[in-house]
Parts: sequence; structure tokens; C-alpha cells
Amino acid sequence: MKRISVDMDGVLADVYSQFIKMHAAEFGQIVSAAEINGRPEAEVFPNERKYVNSSGFFRGAPVMENSQRILEALNKKYKIFIVSAAMEFPNSLSEKQSWLAEHFSFISWQQMVFCGSKEIIKADIMIDDHFKNLNFFSGETILFTQPHNIFADAGSHKRVESWIDIEQLLLG
Amino acid sequence: MKRISVDMDGVLADVYSQFIKMHAAEFGQIVSAAEINGRPEAEVFPNERKYVNSSGFFRGAPVMENSQRILEALNKKYKIFIVSAAMEFPNSLSEKQSWLAEHFSFISWQQMVFCGSKEIIKADIMIDDHFKNLNFFSGETILFTQPHNIFADAGSHKRVESWIDIEQLLLG
Repeated sequence: MKRISVDMDGVLADVYSQFIKMHAAEFGQIVSAAEINGRPEAEVFPNERKYVNSSGFFRGAPVMENSQRILEALNKKYKIFIVSAAMEFPNSLSEKQSWLAEHFSFISWQQMVFCGSKEIIKADIMIDDHFKNLNFFSGETILFTQPHNIFADAGSHKRVESWIDIEQLLLG
Repeated sequence: MKRISVDMDGVLADVYSQFIKMHAAEFGQIVSAAEINGRPEAEVFPNERKYVNSSGFFRGAPVMENSQRILEALNKKYKIFIVSAAMEFPNSLSEKQSWLAEHFSFISWQQMVFCGSKEIIKADIMIDDHFKNLNFFSGETILFTQPHNIFADAGSHKRVESWIDIEQLLLG
């Protein structure tokens, strides 16, 4: 059974919605897609670090569209590991555990990995929105489109725009 | 630079001391080496699960003798990752982070991994006290002697009795 490393932020959890909401609450301004696309998060949201470190940021993130149904189906055909580079934000660990337990209750604790760097991950397929994770992975790499990577050349990675794309690619 | 996966409980953290202390506090009896050696922890300490889930169990664990000095030296010659199967005990994550920050401050967040199963770990060397982790690892495996494994045949794994043995093996 093939092993898939599935990222959380920007793949399962819609962190951009959180950034936009918190930025709007602070500055009274909803940033547009044109302002977000192709730019690093930290550039669009100057207080990104504050938001990420604030209580509830990860716990309250919306679930990415269709991810629950499709991940549950993948979980029957593949060995799924949810791999999140969570160590940078010590408060995020328990929030991320609770978030997964609520929204992806079919994922057991045996399938969760919180790390700092993903270079230690051994799997056959990696789904991630960051080149820094995909570029050092030796298996099949799937780039999940997010605003920060939307204009980048996917290079050797297979780009998917949505969970429906993942479904077609891995279950089709 | 070779990558080493270093276990926490039973390798860096002396969890047996915690079991013995909590068992003595509950039953008024200090278990002897003869009672501990060669038996699974859960058999020796019937309330093991309660202790492990209690606040302060991981945070208050003593540091294994010589581990700080030798891991710091290893950290200069190898790429060290501290890999702990911590997911089973949700409360342990923040305790383990704090414990590492206090006792192994030279280990950065990039070097920490909390997982459920270690089958997802890619490294060259694994130091662990459990066969269930070592047996599924494809690199070099080092079995750290702990009471539960003391009489077991190490098989294809290299057995070490202490951090001094690790020093000789990997830095000698």
C-alpha cells in the first residue's frame, strides 16, 4: 500500500481564510485575490506571525473544500500520514490535534506527524503547497495550488488546483 | 552528513524513574531491578497508562546519564532529529517540547518530530529502545538497553548499554 504524506496548512486547512479574516479585523480591509496571488503570505499580511501565534488560528481554520470526503476515500486505498511542519508554533500542536480529531475523525493518532523539517519524511507521494517541502522529497510530488505558489512554475511537481484534482489523479 | 533519528522515552528521558516513583507513591513499594528486567512496562506497573497520562510525567523525567554532552557532540557531526512517538498521549506534546528546550537547548524546533508510527521516518541511523520501531527501519539500527528489552536477542540491531557506548560507536 503506497504511503502518502498529506500537508495540513494550505492543503487540508484553509489558512488563507484565517489570514484574510484577521487582517480585516485589524485593518478594516479585505484583501483581494489580485493582492494575494503570487506573493508570500508574510508580504501580503504584515502581521502574519502574530496571527499564526494567536490562540485559535489553527483550531478555527475552515476545512478545504471536498478534502474530507476525498481523504476518507484515499484512506482506504493508501496509507495516509498527515504531516505538518507544526514545531515552529508550539501552541499549534494541541490545536492541530483537536482540529484533525473534529474534522478528520477517521485519521488515527498513528497517522499524525508534527515536525519541523519534512526532509525526514519517507513516503511514496507528498501533497504539499510549499516547494521547500516538495523539492527535497524523493517520491512523487503533488503541488497543491495556493495563492503564494499560483504563478510559480511547478517544475517536476504535478500541480493540482483542488481536492477534485487529487481525486482524479489518485483515485480516478 | 548522516541523519540520526534519536528516540526520547527510554533513550534521552529516563521514564523508568518516573514509573518507579509514581508506583511507589501509589503502592508504597519500590520495585526492584529483578522485578522490572525483561518484562513489559505495563506488566510491572499496572497503572502505567494513568502515570503516562498524568500531568508532569514527561516534563519531570530525569535526563539519561551523559546524553546531553554526547548528543551535543553528535549534533556537530550528524544531522540529529529527535523523533518521539508522542501522538498517543496528546498532553505530552507540550511537555516534551518544554523538556527538550530545557535540557537539550541546542536542539532546534527544526530537529523535532512527534509522530504516531515511526515507519514514516527516513534517516541513516535510528537509536531506539523498542523493536517495533527498529524492526521497520531500513538504515542502521541501535537498540538502547532498557529494562523491558534487557534479555531480548538484539538480532540485527547493535545493542548499546549507555550513552558512553553511543559515543564510542558514533564518535570513537
